[in-house]
This record gives sequence, C-alpha cells and structure tokens, in this order.
Amino acid sequence: MDMKNHRFLLAARPQGMPKRSDWSYVEEPVREPRNGEVLIKVLYISLDPGMRGWINDRKSYVPPVAVGDVMRALGLGRVIASKNPKFAVGDYVSGMPGTQEYAVSDGNGFFKIDPQTAPLPVYLSALGMPGMTAYFGLLDTGQPKAGDTVVVSAAAGAVGAVVGQIAKIKGCRAVGVAGGEAKCRYLKDELGLDAAIDYKQEEIYQALRQKCPNGIDVYFDNVGGEILDAVLTQINRGARIVICGAISQYNNTGQIKGPSNYLSLLVNRATMKGMLVTDYLPRYPEVMREMAGWIRAGQLKSREHIVDGLENFPEVLVMLFTGENFGKLEIRVAKE
Amino acid sequence: MDMKNHRFLLAARPQGMPKRSDWSYVEEPVREPRNGEVLIKVLYISLDPGMRGWINDRKSYVPPVAVGDVMRALGLGRVIASKNPKFAVGDYVSGMPGTQEYAVSDGNGFFKIDPQTAPLPVYLSALGMPGMTAYFGLLDTGQPKAGDTVVVSAAAGAVGAVVGQIAKIKGCRAVGVAGGEAKCRYLKDELGLDAAIDYKQEEIYQALRQKCPNGIDVYFDNVGGEILDAVLTQINRGARIVICGAISQYNNTGQIKGPSNYLSLLVNRATMKGMLVTDYLPRYPEVMREMAGWIRAGQLKSREHIVDGLENFPEVLVMLFTGENFGKLEIRVAKE
Repeated sequence: MDMKNHRFLLAARPQGMPKRSDWSYVEEPVREPRNGEVLIKVLYISLDPGMRGWINDRKSYVPPVAVGDVMRALGLGRVIASKNPKFAVGDYVSGMPGTQEYAVSDGNGFFKIDPQTAPLPVYLSALGMPGMTAYFGLLDTGQPKAGDTVVVSAAAGAVGAVVGQIAKIKGCRAVGVAGGEAKCRYLKDELGLDAAIDYKQEEIYQALRQKCPNGIDVYFDNVGGEILDAVLTQINRGARIVICGAISQYNNTGQIKGPSNYLSLLVNRATMKGMLVTDYLPRYPEVMREMAGWIRAGQLKSREHIVDGLENFPEVLVMLFTGENFGKLEIRVAKE
Repeated sequence: MDMKNHRFLLAARPQGMPKRSDWSYVEEPVREPRNGEVLIKVLYISLDPGMRGWINDRKSYVPPVAVGDVMRALGLGRVIASKNPKFAVGDYVSGMPGTQEYAVSDGNGFFKIDPQTAPLPVYLSALGMPGMTAYFGLLDTGQPKAGDTVVVSAAAGAVGAVVGQIAKIKGCRAVGVAGGEAKCRYLKDELGLDAAIDYKQEEIYQALRQKCPNGIDVYFDNVGGEILDAVLTQINRGARIVICGAISQYNNTGQIKGPSNYLSLLVNRATMKGMLVTDYLPRYPEVMREMAGWIRAGQLKSREHIVDGLENFPEVLVMLFTGENFGKLEIRVAKE
C-alpha cells in the first residue's frame, strides 16, 4: 500500500473559540491493517458541539483528546481492506474514525449501515447520534405527554430538529427557538412545528409567553445561557428540563453562566436532568428502525449542511458555535 | 373582651436584608370569634427562610404578603375561645397564625397537637414543617439507598439536622456542611453524622473530596451558591440533587447566582429536582407518628433556638440569614 493519510492532530488546547493554529494538519502513510483490523476510507465526518468539550483538559464523560493525538470525530466510510471477519470490503460502516481520510480500527464501535435505506449523510444526522440523542432525550428523559408544550433550543440544529418533529409525532405543541428568519421559517413550514422563536430578533421572555400560552411542560436544552433562564420563568408544575448541551457556553474563557432562575425548579416541583446518548447504545438498532419508518412515512425530515474537504475542518467546526450551519454539519472527506 | 393584640405588619418591601423599618408593630383590639371561628392565643411562632420569599413582590408558590398585612408565620398556640365544633377551649393547635399575639381563624390549616408526645417547640421543628420537609425531600425526592453518600447543607439548621439524621437511620454515609466549629461538633457528636464540613474554615472543594471519598449520591441543598457549585463537581453518576432552598441567595439585591457547574448533571446523568413540602400534606399525620417514634427511640434529636418576645421579630428573622441561630429558630410569644 502506498497511500497517504491526511489528518488533524490537536496541537494546542484552545482558549475560547478553537482557531486553526490549535490544530496541525499532517500527512502520514496509511498503515496496513493487522489481524482483526479493518481499513476504512472515510467519506463523511460529523461536526458536533461535544467536540469542544473533548479538547478541554478536563475529565468529562470521555477522556480528553491528548495534544498530539488525532482529533476524535464521529463519521462513516467504506471498508477497503479487512482482516476482521465481521466486516467485508465494500461494507459501509459508521463509528468514530477520527478527523482523517483513512482509519485503521479493530472494528470496535463501528456498525454497518445500509445506503439503500437512507442517504449516507442521514446516518450522521437523524439516523445517527443526533437523532438518537433527540429520541432518548425527549422521550426517556423529557417524558412528554400528548398535549404538553415542548420547547427546544437550537431547534434547527441536528438534535433540535428531530426533537421538534418527534414532539409533533407524539401529539405535543412544539415550539422551536432558533437564530434567524430562515431557520424559523423552516421549523414552521417544513418541519411543521407549532411556533418558532427567533432569538436574534425577538425578546425571548415575551416570545415564550406569547408562543407558550399554557406554559412549558418539557424543555429540551441544547444551548444554556439566557434562553434556559427565560424558559425557567415559564415552566409548569412538574416540568421536565432535559440538559443535553449548552452550546452558548462552550467557548467561554471564564465561568459558565449557571441558570440564575433555577429556584423555579423548587416553586414548580420541576426536574432538570442530564442525559448522554451513549447510555442507550443497546437500543440504537430498534430506534433506528422506528425512525427510518418515520422518514419513509414523511413524518421525519433530516437536513444536512455538508462542506467539502477535510482541510477545512478548523473553520467548519467554528460554524457550529456561530450558528452558521443550517442542518447537521458534516464534512465530505471523499466522494465514493 | 378587652384584650390587646400586638402584631407585625409589612410596611415596605425590603431591599436585601429586611430591616426594622420594613415592619410596623401595631396594637389592635382582639376581635371576638364569629360562628365557625376560634380565637388562638399564640405561644410560639416559627422563623423560616421561606419568609424572605413571601415578602417579595413576585408570584411564587404562595401569593406575596401584601404591604399593610400581618406578616405570615407558622406557629402554635392554645384555643381560648371557640365557636368551631372541631376545636375546644384548651386545645393546642399548630398552623399559620401570623406574626401576632392572638389569631382569629376559621380553623383552616390548624391541627391539634399533643404536648404529652413532645414539647411544644418540637412541633415547629422536627415534628413540624422543617421535619416534614426533611423527610419528604430526602426520601421521596432524593431517593437514598443504604450505603449512599448523602450531603446536606445548613446541616445544623431545622431542616438539615433532620435530613442528616434520617440519612443515618436509612444506612447512608451522612456528611453535613455548616458554619462554625460548634455546629460541626454538634453534627458529629450529638447527631452522629459521619463527617462535618465547616464552610467558614475549610476550603469546600477539598473538604468534600476528603469527606466523600466515594463521591456524592444525594445532595440536599438548602443554601445554593458556592456550596451547590462545589457539590456539583463531585456527584456520582445518577446522583439526585434536592433543591429545597437557597438561603445564601435570598437577600441578594442583584441576580441570584445560578449553579455554574450545572453541566455536571449531563456528564453524570444526574437530576436536580425541586420540592415543596405542602404537596405532602395528606401524609403529615402518618409521618409525624413515625418521626415521633424515632424521637422516643433516641434516633432523632430536635434542637430549638428560642428567643423570647414577639417585639424582637425583625432582628430575630435576620439571624436566619447570618447563621446566628443554632437549631430551629422560634419566638416564644407568650408563656402558657
């Protein structure tokens, strides 16, 4: 084999927003797979807000990426060499290949996907980790009942868009908070949400009052900060707040802004609960089948925002935090 | 009847710590009870952190006390005249008489207490609202299992002291956070807690690490602020945080400090849940019997801090927020 692998290594721990100089982009030879290993040609990698946490020097739900290591990334690709009986050349697989063109793996964490059921990028979006996060976070942690008002932030994002649509499927009033008129129009006109709030234009406290006239029963929080505080003032008795992320806070160089209005939990006997999608791994296959059914029935739409070229990784990552992406952000590393 | 009633009316909404000029102390004639009413001679009133919230001009779990109205207060007394068939002259009753010497009531919210079972002040302490709060907050919301580490703040306070002791009764490791050496000694030597942390002397992050070597499974929070943030960094997977109060924040004139480390809920799939004791009203009699049994068995101790004289109410109330009281703070309004 005489193939070159391009990959992004973490060069320095970013202060605030990650910049290009925090990465090194290197070229290395592709290593032959050993017994039990597969060689995967990476086709798409996934850009996820959680990546910002992985490059902090802090214990979290996974160990931090070490300086000098290839940047961790979800993605999918095609098996081009296999010494692992579970995978054959030509298989499409999804897993954690890292931010690189070729991945050698023992197959752990990779599973086969079927490009006939859905286009490949959907497997990193509604049928991938974001879709699973939305499904389990909303239904298992949020426990919505038909007729409840469900509010979701980053509602046009990869997780949020699925949350809003599942809320509708379950008979809830779904209200999405997003930035910009185009995203808000999309939420209402394409995804069928009951209302959308443009946090860049509207006063969030007032908009929530208007668009949630019966208060808020479930809040699926992807952003933290000001929007979480505003929601807390308008929750109903027994409300459930799902803490899925806090993208507004991830690049703070100072302290994270905690929810000042958290005592509303006391007044309203409400719950704030964190969730991590990896806890639900054993249920992925069953839920992927259910959600693929919703997609075929036209009840669930998946939208991807695809940028070509691995070399753009540093700039594409930042789009997540400035809200520039519209749909699940992915890099197409290679055409088939 | 030619009796005088002294009472405290709310004169102005306090900014920050309530001061004497926020109250007016008035003398009025005692009104005859009408049909269905009782006249209660108030013996003890209860000073509770929740009072600070009642005098804000903000909707909460109860309507605010209006300027000009008698200050709301829990308390107990003796029936001295009755036109209500449910109560007889001589009955001892507990309820919400207000900050005054005599209360006329239709009997709603008052229930009889037996001074043979426990001394009267205990009915505002371990066998009163604080004890019920501790019992339901810890057991129903906190869901401790034997062997869990339970941390409680304001641990020498009326609620906290009962929380720590019930945690021990249930086979948990109980760690109390309190201010000052005397309180910490009391927690360990008299109440039998496994460890105590003096937040005024010890660095709270380090002290929690030392005294909770297996992490924290349940945190019963009465104080909010810095201690809540420190606990959040050391919770175990699936931990339960009971939000019962936030006494460190009640007199803030600015915004309440939200818990900056709340994303630990996500990393640890943990829950933060509010509770209000009044939701459990129907279960009070059963639980009071259970807790009276613990008191008789020497498993549960109740400590009261009693100040004489209703006229001292404004200064006594402030003791709650400066941590000057040691035990359940009560005013003895009259000797029998």
